[in-house]
Amino acid sequence: MIGIEVDSLAVRLDRLLQATTAQGLDAALITSDESIAYLTGFRPIQMERFFGVVVRPERSAVIVPALDRGQIDDAPEALARISYGPESDGLPELAGALTGAGTVGVEEDHLIYARARALEQVGFELVPAGSAVMGLRIQKDAGEIERIRRACELVQEGLRRAFEWLSPGVVEHALNARVEGWLRERGATAAHPLILFGENAANPHGEPGSRELRRGDVVCADLSACLDGYWGDLTRCATVGPPSEWATSAWQVVLEAQRAANAAAQPGVPGRDVDAAQRRVVEAASDLGAVLHGAGHAIGLSIHEPPFLVPRAHEPLPERVVLTIEPGIYRAGVGGIRLEDDVVVTTGGPAILSDLPLELVDVSA
Amino acid sequence: MIGIEVDSLAVRLDRLLQATTAQGLDAALITSDESIAYLTGFRPIQMERFFGVVVRPERSAVIVPALDRGQIDDAPEALARISYGPESDGLPELAGALTGAGTVGVEEDHLIYARARALEQVGFELVPAGSAVMGLRIQKDAGEIERIRRACELVQEGLRRAFEWLSPGVVEHALNARVEGWLRERGATAAHPLILFGENAANPHGEPGSRELRRGDVVCADLSACLDGYWGDLTRCATVGPPSEWATSAWQVVLEAQRAANAAAQPGVPGRDVDAAQRRVVEAASDLGAVLHGAGHAIGLSIHEPPFLVPRAHEPLPERVVLTIEPGIYRAGVGGIRLEDDVVVTTGGPAILSDLPLELVDVSA
Repeated sequence: MIGIEVDSLAVRLDRLLQATTAQGLDAALITSDESIAYLTGFRPIQMERFFGVVVRPERSAVIVPALDRGQIDDAPEALARISYGPESDGLPELAGALTGAGTVGVEEDHLIYARARALEQVGFELVPAGSAVMGLRIQKDAGEIERIRRACELVQEGLRRAFEWLSPGVVEHALNARVEGWLRERGATAAHPLILFGENAANPHGEPGSRELRRGDVVCADLSACLDGYWGDLTRCATVGPPSEWATSAWQVVLEAQRAANAAAQPGVPGRDVDAAQRRVVEAASDLGAVLHGAGHAIGLSIHEPPFLVPRAHEPLPERVVLTIEPGIYRAGVGGIRLEDDVVVTTGGPAILSDLPLELVDVSA
Repeated sequence: MIGIEVDSLAVRLDRLLQATTAQGLDAALITSDESIAYLTGFRPIQMERFFGVVVRPERSAVIVPALDRGQIDDAPEALARISYGPESDGLPELAGALTGAGTVGVEEDHLIYARARALEQVGFELVPAGSAVMGLRIQKDAGEIERIRRACELVQEGLRRAFEWLSPGVVEHALNARVEGWLRERGATAAHPLILFGENAANPHGEPGSRELRRGDVVCADLSACLDGYWGDLTRCATVGPPSEWATSAWQVVLEAQRAANAAAQPGVPGRDVDAAQRRVVEAASDLGAVLHGAGHAIGLSIHEPPFLVPRAHEPLPERVVLTIEPGIYRAGVGGIRLEDDVVVTTGGPAILSDLPLELVDVSA
């Protein structure tokens, strides 16, 4: 859909090496699951065992637990394979791969303190450099955009199912579990449905509980799923029976806010301006409820990744960042209305990766 | 089942304060989701927003995003409530709560480098002190053991269902999704089924794929679920049709290894001895396959928590730690056999928290 190439893993690694040396660093240490997946094609699930990629001129390497050695066959050839057994915690092998480097850029929002300290104690100087890898990950290539689009396609099919299953008496947590199971059976490697009923929907961080669906409820259905490594995340709303005056008005305002934020999502515009575009609309309707969060966030290998569309986001958006745009209005004791789409920022205007109507559905009709 | 009290959150907070001051620290900073749940009764899901507990004489506090303020009502009264809005990243509020402290103990395996660095840059001296809170969390009270037992009860019911659904032609990832949905519908807040067929079961970290179940397969079914904050984690094996000579022999060896490790799991014994007890048995049968992991790990608020039962675990086990005991044997191209139970270490001998038979089930029978 967007005429750009699909990057190879080797190209990504090379770009990260350039970004690292351009910052005057001797090496970069990549430790987050998603950045490792971005560079190697394999997404580890790290618990106590260390897994990392060292990027440096001529001597890049991937350090893996021996158990996972077989899973990194697709990683670029430029990465030396270093594995360690159960007698090690992987840090001596990591220090070995960094030998001779003075300054090491790290993913400061992921590296844990114990490992940072161990590296500093053997003489490496750590420098926050998460923006180097995020500066690459933020711009999606055609293959990544297609994968996010397919995740959205699955999620919107899940939303259609969820709405079919919304009949009075259904229990909130059981419905969420059913939708999660449905998404997983269709190949999602992870899925987070958050479908909240009536007054529970007034809390955007609510947890599905034993509440039964009743006639007159508003339903706020936020579904996300990870398919083939990439996330899709959409929200639609419904009512059980004809919508109340509040629900109709809130939905209209949120729809207008979403359109305003979509229109603002242009290359070169700072994230805070996208937030401001929706905030202006929803805050003008404060009689309908509270504004509890920003306009959204970027999405890709992570379900939440920078930039976050909040008032302190002053960096200009690049082309081909994919954003969730998700304004909402919440009235305590009554419910919440939120509309969310995933949008590619392009010079030609925002490209929305789903085609599910935004309408407020009466599921009893 | 075990005659000890259920600790109140306030008692836990007080014990942690004692452990902190006994280490000569001015304060402790708790940042992992599970330790926060241990102290406040609320388990946050932290993404980009900071959430933490500061423990210090007279001035303990919990720092929460404003959005989550309503969810910490059950936290001990001794914790001052400090919340912050979207204009902050929470760190100025954290630094404020620590004002006057020189040395601050941190959970070194959870605190991220960016936050550690921000605290160090305003003058705090950080000290690894994860063992202070883990030293409390390791010993489960009666209420915690009961919750783990109930999680195991759900998991063993899930295993019974999974075995009913094992018929030739069923697709690996679809079965896993169905079992996950079943566990979630019954109240699991998270569930990780890992049911692998035939040669896929030879990789203990395998990922369920499109493989169909066939007659002659061995199945290794590892199920975990989190119920009411605590995890249960069990593994049982099956065959489709009469077991091969390999499967029968491997199952007998693993059963013997599990019994040996259970018997070794006594208060005062180091974790490595529990590992050695099973390792001796499975390694003696190396003609049957490879030994790819240690004897297990502790379980509780986290699915994997220390101590890990591996050769470098030299600390003595305390009473009332709950361990997974899970020896296995893996033969490439053929399959894997693992048996796993969750076991409370007590002076009266190991107490197993499930009663599902360990037998190698022929699901076609």
